[in-house]
Amino acid sequence: MIDVQTIVPFDGQTPKTRLADVLGLDERRQFARAMLRDVLTVVEDVGSTPVVLSRTPLDVGGVAVCVDDRPLSTAVNEKLRESTQSSAVVMSDLPLLTTRALRRLLERDGDIVLARGTKGGTNALVTRHPAFSVDYHGGSYDKHLRIAREVGASVSEVDSYRLGVDIDEPDDLVELLLHGDGYAVDWLRDHGFETTRSDGEPTLQRSETPPVRSAF
Amino acid sequence: MIDVQTIVPFDGQTPKTRLADVLGLDERRQFARAMLRDVLTVVEDVGSTPVVLSRTPLDVGGVAVCVDDRPLSTAVNEKLRESTQSSAVVMSDLPLLTTRALRRLLERDGDIVLARGTKGGTNALVTRHPAFSVDYHGGSYDKHLRIAREVGASVSEVDSYRLGVDIDEPDDLVELLLHGDGYAVDWLRDHGFETTRSDGEPTLQRSETPPVRSAF
Repeated sequence: MIDVQTIVPFDGQTPKTRLADVLGLDERRQFARAMLRDVLTVVEDVGSTPVVLSRTPLDVGGVAVCVDDRPLSTAVNEKLRESTQSSAVVMSDLPLLTTRALRRLLERDGDIVLARGTKGGTNALVTRHPAFSVDYHGGSYDKHLRIAREVGASVSEVDSYRLGVDIDEPDDLVELLLHGDGYAVDWLRDHGFETTRSDGEPTLQRSETPPVRSAF
Repeated sequence: MIDVQTIVPFDGQTPKTRLADVLGLDERRQFARAMLRDVLTVVEDVGSTPVVLSRTPLDVGGVAVCVDDRPLSTAVNEKLRESTQSSAVVMSDLPLLTTRALRRLLERDGDIVLARGTKGGTNALVTRHPAFSVDYHGGSYDKHLRIAREVGASVSEVDSYRLGVDIDEPDDLVELLLHGDGYAVDWLRDHGFETTRSDGEPTLQRSETPPVRSAF
């Protein structure tokens, strides 16, 4: 048991808009749920208590859900203020996450522990400092380093590919298909996605199988 | 001092062809050299002995260079066979590499230590097993897992964003500009590259500054 609550923000209504070229809205919702399930499984496997912070009511089988439709940073900061223990914030679009990678994050010393995400984001963090707050809008990693400095909190950084790669764009699906192992990659494969290689470069392909949209 | 030689394959002639849309050939050569310099600096800083495996003669100031114009895997396997000590193979297009990340690779136990790269590649590995060989063509990570199994070698995997992100495509330059700190990112900035954010998404931009090609 790790004495850290892990907040997992989730948008189940209009998730992953940058995947709209390859997945319809219903599909994106299903896929987002599969990614969330991957993340929650890992959180529970390491013995942390997950709390889903959802924009809309949601049933995720036994996991606590707080509904808050305010902007992401506002909602997360409210949860952090309420908490009397250490908190982690782990994004729900990290289906490559493993228990080993999450343990490295949760067990690392430091008032603030940050995991660098591609495109300048902060895919996961731990805070043990009451004055720390999050700010997820654009380039959050540097902002979080700055906020930590401003409140006098020590910072540790976790260097992890599995925490670093979030799924935003079609190219990220290639990454998931190549390296994933869980509900989200199963969902992709069940819906006809695969990678092919041309000139050694993996590219995303979708076969004409039974899904809602059969091609793109 | 770490008793591992680190082989760094390098193509100084026609490097990084997938950056051709944003960098001319001369620029790609300069940029590739800057990335190589970043990697060699880290290798030396951790106390490993670097050996550049170059397709053409090259002067990299005091670092040993072996010239071999055969295909990458053939050349690397030849070097591995010659070596009487543990060897690491670290790609030259990892300008986000840090000493901490490389140390994690070099110090990890296991006959074979692999660092997963984006797009299914193997950006860095250590071999301490005489029968192991590399095969870098398309999807090498799974191949290396299989080769290790076939020769009965134990495998450890290092989960690192900094070892995982190699620079192949224009999008990767965004990553380097956001998270880098070394010769390669300096080169990019000196040549007018920067990131701008639209809708929170970082995109690559090049200003009209003095470089060889002033725009793309």
